[in-house]
This record gives sequence, C-alpha cells and structure tokens, in this order.
Amino acid sequence: MIISLKMNPDTEQLENLKTWLTNMGLEIHMSQGTRSLVMGLIGDTTVVDTDLILALDIVEDVKRIQEPYKNANRKFHPDDTVITAGGATIGGGHFMLIAGPCSVESREQICGIAQEVKAAGAHMMRGGAFKPRSSPYAFQGLRGEGISFLLEAKRETGLPIVTEIMDVSQLPLFEEVDIIQVGARNMQNFELLKELGSVNKPILLKRGLANTLEEFLMSAEYIMSGGNSKVILCERGIRTFETATRNTLDLSAIPVLKELSHLPVMIDPSHAIGIARHVAPMSLAAVAAGADGLIIEVHHNPAAALCDGPQSITPAAFASLVSRINPLLQLRAEFQ
Amino acid sequence: MIISLKMNPDTEQLENLKTWLTNMGLEIHMSQGTRSLVMGLIGDTTVVDTDLILALDIVEDVKRIQEPYKNANRKFHPDDTVITAGGATIGGGHFMLIAGPCSVESREQICGIAQEVKAAGAHMMRGGAFKPRSSPYAFQGLRGEGISFLLEAKRETGLPIVTEIMDVSQLPLFEEVDIIQVGARNMQNFELLKELGSVNKPILLKRGLANTLEEFLMSAEYIMSGGNSKVILCERGIRTFETATRNTLDLSAIPVLKELSHLPVMIDPSHAIGIARHVAPMSLAAVAAGADGLIIEVHHNPAAALCDGPQSITPAAFASLVSRINPLLQLRAEFQ
Amino acid sequence: MIISLKMNPDTEQLENLKTWLTNMGLEIHMSQGTRSLVMGLIGDTTVVDTDLILALDIVEDVKRIQEPYKNANRKFHPDDTVITAGGATIGGGHFMLIAGPCSVESREQICGIAQEVKAAGAHMMRGGAFKPRSSPYAFQGLRGEGISFLLEAKRETGLPIVTEIMDVSQLPLFEEVDIIQVGARNMQNFELLKELGSVNKPILLKRGLANTLEEFLMSAEYIMSGGNSKVILCERGIRTFETATRNTLDLSAIPVLKELSHLPVMIDPSHAIGIARHVAPMSLAAVAAGADGLIIEVHHNPAAALCDGPQSITPAAFASLVSRINPLLQLRAEFQ
Amino acid sequence: MIISLKMNPDTEQLENLKTWLTNMGLEIHMSQGTRSLVMGLIGDTTVVDTDLILALDIVEDVKRIQEPYKNANRKFHPDDTVITAGGATIGGGHFMLIAGPCSVESREQICGIAQEVKAAGAHMMRGGAFKPRSSPYAFQGLRGEGISFLLEAKRETGLPIVTEIMDVSQLPLFEEVDIIQVGARNMQNFELLKELGSVNKPILLKRGLANTLEEFLMSAEYIMSGGNSKVILCERGIRTFETATRNTLDLSAIPVLKELSHLPVMIDPSHAIGIARHVAPMSLAAVAAGADGLIIEVHHNPAAALCDGPQSITPAAFASLVSRINPLLQLRAEFQ
Repeated sequence: MIISLKMNPDTEQLENLKTWLTNMGLEIHMSQGTRSLVMGLIGDTTVVDTDLILALDIVEDVKRIQEPYKNANRKFHPDDTVITAGGATIGGGHFMLIAGPCSVESREQICGIAQEVKAAGAHMMRGGAFKPRSSPYAFQGLRGEGISFLLEAKRETGLPIVTEIMDVSQLPLFEEVDIIQVGARNMQNFELLKELGSVNKPILLKRGLANTLEEFLMSAEYIMSGGNSKVILCERGIRTFETATRNTLDLSAIPVLKELSHLPVMIDPSHAIGIARHVAPMSLAAVAAGADGLIIEVHHNPAAALCDGPQSITPAAFASLVSRINPLLQLRAEFQ
Repeated sequence: MIISLKMNPDTEQLENLKTWLTNMGLEIHMSQGTRSLVMGLIGDTTVVDTDLILALDIVEDVKRIQEPYKNANRKFHPDDTVITAGGATIGGGHFMLIAGPCSVESREQICGIAQEVKAAGAHMMRGGAFKPRSSPYAFQGLRGEGISFLLEAKRETGLPIVTEIMDVSQLPLFEEVDIIQVGARNMQNFELLKELGSVNKPILLKRGLANTLEEFLMSAEYIMSGGNSKVILCERGIRTFETATRNTLDLSAIPVLKELSHLPVMIDPSHAIGIARHVAPMSLAAVAAGADGLIIEVHHNPAAALCDGPQSITPAAFASLVSRINPLLQLRAEFQ
Repeated sequence: MIISLKMNPDTEQLENLKTWLTNMGLEIHMSQGTRSLVMGLIGDTTVVDTDLILALDIVEDVKRIQEPYKNANRKFHPDDTVITAGGATIGGGHFMLIAGPCSVESREQICGIAQEVKAAGAHMMRGGAFKPRSSPYAFQGLRGEGISFLLEAKRETGLPIVTEIMDVSQLPLFEEVDIIQVGARNMQNFELLKELGSVNKPILLKRGLANTLEEFLMSAEYIMSGGNSKVILCERGIRTFETATRNTLDLSAIPVLKELSHLPVMIDPSHAIGIARHVAPMSLAAVAAGADGLIIEVHHNPAAALCDGPQSITPAAFASLVSRINPLLQLRAEFQ
Repeated sequence: MIISLKMNPDTEQLENLKTWLTNMGLEIHMSQGTRSLVMGLIGDTTVVDTDLILALDIVEDVKRIQEPYKNANRKFHPDDTVITAGGATIGGGHFMLIAGPCSVESREQICGIAQEVKAAGAHMMRGGAFKPRSSPYAFQGLRGEGISFLLEAKRETGLPIVTEIMDVSQLPLFEEVDIIQVGARNMQNFELLKELGSVNKPILLKRGLANTLEEFLMSAEYIMSGGNSKVILCERGIRTFETATRNTLDLSAIPVLKELSHLPVMIDPSHAIGIARHVAPMSLAAVAAGADGLIIEVHHNPAAALCDGPQSITPAAFASLVSRINPLLQLRAEFQ
C-alpha cells in the first residue's frame, strides 16, 4: 500500500499515523521527493481500511498494491477450486452446463423441461421460485411451491437443481437444493452473504449490474470468510450506455477472474444479452474464452413464459447449441 | 403501449395476443403500413408485463407510453407529498436538513455530534448502526448497540433520527427510529421493500448505484403498493466511468423526479462526491436545483472516523454551510 | 415512427404537424385513448428529424420503429457485403486476420514484423503512423515517414496494409494504403467521414468509446451515403465503470451488428482488453461469436514498444494464437 | 510515480529500467517487502510514458502521483486565469453568460435572438454554423453563410460571438469570431487541438461524452502546450446508463476542475439535460456550485428550431432565468 502525503505534513499527525500502522504489524518506508512525500507499507495490508487513512488531513491519496481479498485470491491458493453438487462438477477442467426456465410455473412445465434439457446434455437444472422483479405488479414467482416442483423434477430426472434465494428467512426451504443462487441485485446484500458463509452448499454468486470484478471477489470473500469456500462466480452482463442489448456481457471477466482467483467462472448469456436468438453465439464465445460453465434459459414455449421471455431458447435450440458446444470444448481441451 | 409486430404475423398467434389483451380490459388499435404493423393499446397498461409480449414470435418491439408506476405517479396525485417524522417535515415547500456521522462509534461521539449539528440547524440526525461495507474485513457497525446510542442522543437533544436497515430481521430494533433508511445496495432488495410496505414509518429510499430513475420509482412503488405511502427519494450519486469523484452526483434527478412523482426528493452530496471539501458546493447546487432536503455527513474529527472518512465535514464546516444554505432557501422561496 | 401527443393538443399546431408530415410523403394514423393520444407514421421516416418533432409543445415523446439508416441496413441489402483490399477479403464467409504493431517505429521494425506475421498467417498488416495520444507529451507517431516504412514493408512481403488517418489533410499520403482506418476518437468526426465517402478504398471504422451500435451504423451511413460502400465495422471495447480491463470488449456487438447490417464486423481484442496475456482468449471468443475478422497488435519486443505496449503480443504468441484460430474457424464453418 | 515490480525481477531488465529512468533526470527509491517490490520515482514525471513501463515483463503496475498536465495545472499557476473576448470576461470572479440558438437558421433569426438575449443580460451570443449531427440526413448547418449571419448579428448588437469549428480547414472563416468552440465529439481530435494551439483566440473546449476530467485537462494541455493559454473548460453532460435525461450533467466537475486547474469552468445545461423545462434548475445549480459561466440555448420559437429543439428555452424564459441568476451570483459573491 502506497500513501501519498501532502508536502510538509503536521509532525504529530504523521507520528500518530506511523504508530497506528506499525501496531498493525506493517513496516513503513518513506520516500521524500521535491514535490511529493510517499509512504510505502510492507506486510499484510488486507485489514487496513483505506478510507480511514484517506480521511486524514495529511494524506493526499492511498493506493493498494495487494488485492484486498485472501480466501478468493489465487496467490494463496494456486490450484483451481473444483466444486461438486449433486453429482455435477465445475472447475479444474470440468465444464458444467445448467439449463432451465427463468421461472417455475407448474409441476408439468418444470418436469417437462427437466426431461428435455437432460436429454440434450445439461448437467443441472435451473428455475426461479423466488423472482426479483423491478415492478411489484409483475409475477413474483411460485415461491415455496416453486421449490417443491423443482424437487419433484429432480426426483424424476436425477438432475441436481440450482435456484435463487432472495432473503435469509427463505433458507430453510433450500435444504434439498443443490446449489443456492444469489442474484445480481443481491450481490452486495451483505447480511445474506454472511449467512451463506455458514451453509454447507455451493453458492452460485452472480455479479451485480454495476459492480467491478474486485467488488465481485470481495462478495465471494464475504461467503468464504464465513467458512463456505464453495463459491461459483457468474458473470451475467453489466449495465452500460448501450441499449441494443439488455446488458453488456463482459467476457473479459473470464480471463481476469481466473487469473485473480481459483474459483470457477460461469457465464449466463441469457440474462446478459436478453435476446433469445443471440444466446447461442454468446454461449460459444464464453466457451472459447475459457468459461467453466454456462447457465442458459430454456423454455418449452418461449411465448408463454411468465417472465424474462425474450431471452429464453427452446429445448430444440438448446440441444442444437449443445451439439456445437461439445466439439468446441474438445478443441479447447486439446490446446490446454 | 405500442407493440410493433413483425410483417405478416401468424394469424392464430395474433388472435391469441389480441384476446389476451382484450381480456385485460385494453382496447386495441391496429396500424398497417408498407413496412410495419403496429398495435396500440388503450387503457391501464400498468399491469401488462412487457417481457411476456416481447417473448412472442410475432412481436418485434414493445414501447410503453405510460409510466409503469401508479402510487408514486404525480399524474394521479398532483400535490406534493408532505412527510413528518418526529417533528421534522419534508416536501411541499418544507426543507429537511439531516446531519450526522457515517457510523455510530460510541455514546459520547453520537451525543456530542447530535448537540453540535442541532446547534448548527439540523432537523434530524443520521448515523449508521448497520454498515454495508464491500469488504468483510472492514468495520461492520455497532449494530443493535449503535441504535441504542442513537436513541440516547435523540433523548438528550430531541433530534429525531434516521438510520439504515440491512435485513428484514433487524426491523424490531427500529421501533423508536423516526425514519428508516434503505441503502443504495438494497434499493432492489424486494423482500425488504415489501416488508417496509407494512411499516408505519417514513422510509428514506436511496437510489441504487446503477439504477434508472424509473427503477427508483418502481422500488418506491413496491413500498407504497404495500400501504406505506411515506417514501422519501434520495439521490446519492451514480456509478459512471469517471474516477475523479467517488460517484457522479446526478442533480438532474431533482427536476425529473419532482415532475414524475409527488414524493419529496433529498440529496446526499457526501456519499456522491466522496470528498469532504467538495460537499459544500454540491449541497448548495442541490438546494438551487430544488431539492426538498439534504443528508450530510458530519464528523467531529474526520481523521478518526471508523468509516467513509473522506466525505465527512466537521461540525464547524457544517455550521458554515448551513449559514449559506439558509439565504439560498429564502431566495428560492421568493422565486417560486 | 410513433408520436405521443399531449392530451388536448392545440388544434392549429396539430394541423401544422400533420401537413408537414404529409408533405414528406408519410401517412398518418391517429389513436385516441383515455389517457393518451398517439400518432403513427407510415412510410420512409429515415429523413424525419425526431428532434424537430420533440421540440413541439404538443408532443410528449417520439419513438422510431424503423432504423434511421438505409445504406448500412440489412433490410435493404440482405446479402453480406464482401470487401477485398490488396488481395485480402472479408465478409460473406471470408475471415480476415490483420496483425502488426501499434506504432511504426522504424523501417527495420515494421519490415521485420511484417515477415513474421505473414509467416504466421496474417492476411494484412497494421501499424500506426499517425497516433492519437491523450497526452501531447506522448509519442505522436512517425507520420508521413511511418507511412513510407509501411509501404516498404508491403513491397517486401506483399502484405496489404491498413493504417489510421486523423485528419482530412493527411489523405494524399494514403494513396497506396489498402484500407484506411478511422479511430474510435474520430468515429463522429463527421467532416472526415464525409470526405471518406468519396474515397475509393475500404474504410475500417472503429466504434467510439461511448457510442451505441446505432450511432456506429449512422457513422457508417455517413461514409456510405457519400458513395463509398466499403465499410468494415470494428468493435474495440467500450468505456464502462470497470477498471480491471482497459475497456469492456462488447462481443454482443457481433450478432447484433450482423443482424442489423450487411457490413463485415471485425474485433480488436488488443485495444479492448489492454492486457497482452488476455488477448488470445478474447480473440477466440470473437471467432466463436461469428466475427468476420480480427485486428491484433503484435510487437517484436513488447517491452520496447513506443506506445500501447501492455496490449501487444509477440510474433510467437501470435503464431500460437493463429494455430488455435484456424481449427475454430473450421468448426464454425461446419455448423453454418 | 510508483512502479510495482514483480517479485524477483530479472536483474538485467531491472538495471535497464533504472538507467532509462535516471537518464530522464528522475531519482529512484526502492522499497522491498515480503510480498512486493516497489520503485518510487522522484522528479518531473510528466514526460514519462506509463504505457512503456507497463509493457515491461518485470512490471506489475504503474501509478502516477503527479498529474500528467503542466500548463493547465493549478499547482504551477495558483491564480485563476481570466479570459476576455470581445469585451466579455470569464474567470477570477467574472461570470460569463452566453446565449443563443443551437443552429443559425437565417439572418433574421440570429439578429432577432441576439437583440433579445442582449436585452435579457447575455454577455455573448452563441449559434452553430457547422453542426455535428449523428445522422447524415439531419440538417448540417448553414456553414460559411451561418458565420456571416453571426457576424452581422455581432455588428448590429455589439455582442461578441462563439461558434463551433469542426475541422482545421474551416479556420480561415473564424477570423472575426470571438471564441472558437470545440465540440464534445472533437475533444480528442488531436490534430484540431494542435492547430488551435497556435491561434490567438480563446477556445471554449467542451468535455467529451465519455471523457474523464483528467483526459479533459489533457486536451486543454494540447492547446496550451502549443502556446494558446486561453482555454475555457465546458462541462456539457456525460453519457451514463440513465435515459430519463439526454446526458447526465456532472456538476461535481466544477469544484474538481477548479481545484486541479486555474482555467475557467463553464456549464452547458441545455445539451446536458436535453429538456427545456429543466434547464433553469440546472443553470441555478451550476451557479450555486461555483461555475464561472453558462452557455444556454435560446430559441425564438422552440417548435421550429432546425435542430436540438427539445433543449431550447424561449427568450422570455431566458430573461426570467437571468433574473434568478443575478441575485444568486450576488449571494455567492458575499460568501467568498
């Protein structure tokens, strides 16, 4: 950590700062120039609150050299994390394909799609029971009943399931769920993240609409520092000025996250681009860029979906996409 | 609502769509051109889920003409909403000035600042007990104890208090709190918003970092549709590409929100710009633009704040700012 | 085009508007609802200036149904445009690979790299002679001399060349250049675009840092409406809040642009991500998503590049990348 | 400047870097930690190209401590720059009010508005002769004829004029123009900026849609390093995700720019918000925040403007706004 001081700082304040930092176990190196005075901190600066330092009158700027996350950091955990849920595996060369509708609508719907996506090659099934919708007048999901339908589909097909939690109080309903999803709008719902830190299940953590990759890793760190190291990172599009697509899918997140962290990285092309006919090219791009998994919206009859229709592809389109993903995965493996 | 159809749409699908819309009480006007086919909907389209329509094969695009919110809409409630909390009032010409530290740190700290900001002219006191921090290693607030310190300060000074809730489960602790704040990161925590819809207290709702003004009003609508109409909208800076300031304070939100909605609009210049010495000019700008209130971070000794230090001004700087706000308010009143 | 009128508009103004629109050859359909009054325009609305209409007192909003571009529009030109320059071809199934350094530094440098990228499989060579740099103190390019070095490299290797123009006055120097590049900062330098409309050479038009895909196509339309239909669209990253990468590469632009337009779409992964070791995964992703070409920065010794060093890969890394692109292109062709 | 090195860097490369930096007159301080190795540079680092350093294998990151601009930097020029053009003055406590239509349409139009804005209190007149329009089919301005109309209006009213240049080749037409405007889309048209560096006239430089304040100051530096120190900085809204306003007016730019630079800072509320009825509150906010001037679009009959209509106010609305700006300026002066 580098602290740029104002020229001719108050001596007492400077001594106080030095004492405070030394007490945290840090070593201090001073560099005096003609137009600048710089303090370099050596040691574990993860616990240093840069805001506190910036607040000091004598400080001009503070810059981190080290990343502020530990558990999620590849530097301290060089090997890929491999996560298994209900028989499906992601990370360390294992590719995980999740498919299913945006919302659970009925027992028949979810069991039907489960059969079809399983036949097409999906390893897990997704479906929303609790639905975050920007309008209070839009369909809010079947909630508890939706989860019971998902569990029936799991029993019928053997496909493990992933579904979204929206509040700590819903946790008891997730006992038989294989992976718990935290949605983009809850990426910084820190009370929820803390609670999930003590759950013994993988968490599929979606990146917030306007969160940096560092904030994303800090949210993973919230879960991991609570003791749950099974976090899957999922990029699902960020908010930009562009309106031609629903969000802007940030595929650069794949190489960047995989370099910074050992956690598996999944892509959700459906929510990102928001246009069903463009889901296939973005899925293939994600695989080519090195994604560890995909989570794709599939709906029997897109026209009748109760929510997020425009981004859902049909089971047939999904099967056709899988037939293009597989040779691409093989090609990718050959070059690794 | 305007639905642009693809040329030569499937007749059966078109009839199904028409029937569905007619059953919702909407009237349909068709316009056929040489290169387009457009369906205009007349009636209350608030309940129409545009995503469902967009999902149809025969549809090219859907555009709303009416706003998707009702309770928050000035069209249906032309007069300004006036909200009173613990004796302080906002809206309809009443200006509310809230001040206090980012975090509650101790009984002495919060009582001391309360005295000072009251003397300087604040109508309410703020202070965070539950703190949303991007790092799990940063100070998370005194939580329940913090609220008890705030209540002591309230008893000592008579200043009503506003403090942030982060999870539904914390609600019992807020019984004597005058205004409940929902932070930017929870603007779309819909489960929390629904719960606050049945609370009989004003809610200070902060705009999310990357949320549009329409989404902001939809979140207010979540609370209002639950029965609680006392919502104060608070702009606190949005996330843009600019890094010279912490966020970009969007003062245009003032005239736009006040035209679209009857709810009072408050500005938080401290979190927005994130630089203490620039809080004063942005506060004055907010007043000149027509804000109904300001919420300003004030700290006894900025250098020692446990969080968000860089954006806090001292009680003396606050008093000086108030002495500039008051004549500006008077000037503003003369021109209304 | 849909014009939403205010309720009870001034009759005379409404009649004036109708006359004006009818005189432009448009047919008008009115839809009157209880809370809205909507005017639908049928015909060629490309020439209608929406700003003019929005300025009218009686108008609330204007929404386009048709795209405001014609020459670049796939609706009027369903087949892919195929562009050939100096023997290299792009579009309609032809993939074009361009490689070379950010800046031309010397005759030896550019001829050396030209040999190497040709051997590795590049179809064209790039190299900047005129360099747009945000600082006036940074290297501004070898300018005219740089172009002469590029032409020598072309003569030696037979590789056609692409290089950037920054001002109309530089045009005479580009006579033997095969493709003229317009950089991101000049995407809306309309005087330059108009001038290039009368040039008989392909133009590689880069998307601006904060320009929408519609604005991008409008800039292509500037060139095409002048008579030059040989425009290659190049996505090179957009500016977002994310700071982990130099820009955010928007690969969604590929399927979206290729659907809206018949022009070839190229990707510049080097400028987009700005980190040499992440150029390969983003290149492969672009190919998987359907890009018609790639323009990649290659430098002999990245550490010594006079500009934009961090994003350049070595000739060896480029050769290795080409050996992965080729089987991917083959796989892609099989599925089309 | 702080250079973070990789652990255990190649000794020869490190020595080469040190020699290169020392030859530039910089002093080097090394700090070795357990997990980091940092090099601090002391001296004038303005001329150091950070990209070159970042490109080195042994370097992990480079961070500037000093600003990369000199001429525009308040550190080297503590007093406000005061600029006078045709009798109107801006900076150092002088407030400049510019008004006029977006486009020059006819002699009568521009002379008429000139009379009215002068009577209302404007110090200068604006009007576009060369118009940057995103569509090639939109009105492109009267060009040379437009400038001659502006000059007639100047002769008739005595109001000095400001108008936009779009290309170096247009410069001869600007001989009698008092202030030359560089539009947002040309903020990084470096060839144009260089040319304006040798012109003996004030330049009104508008901030680009997606340019940081540092880039903005670097563009001013381009002009100033050429010898022309009369640069007026103008914030006119930046591009964000918000669609309720045309752009997001970044008023934080006022205190930030005035701290970093001695150049006067002007605000263009009309282009920023793009909605005529919201121009007044944003103008007052700009004054309250400390702006040195305003440039406001005024049009006789907004409904008939040939471009940018929605953001123009009438002469009567302008006069009313001026009657509110003046007492605000007086109040502001009392507190300085």
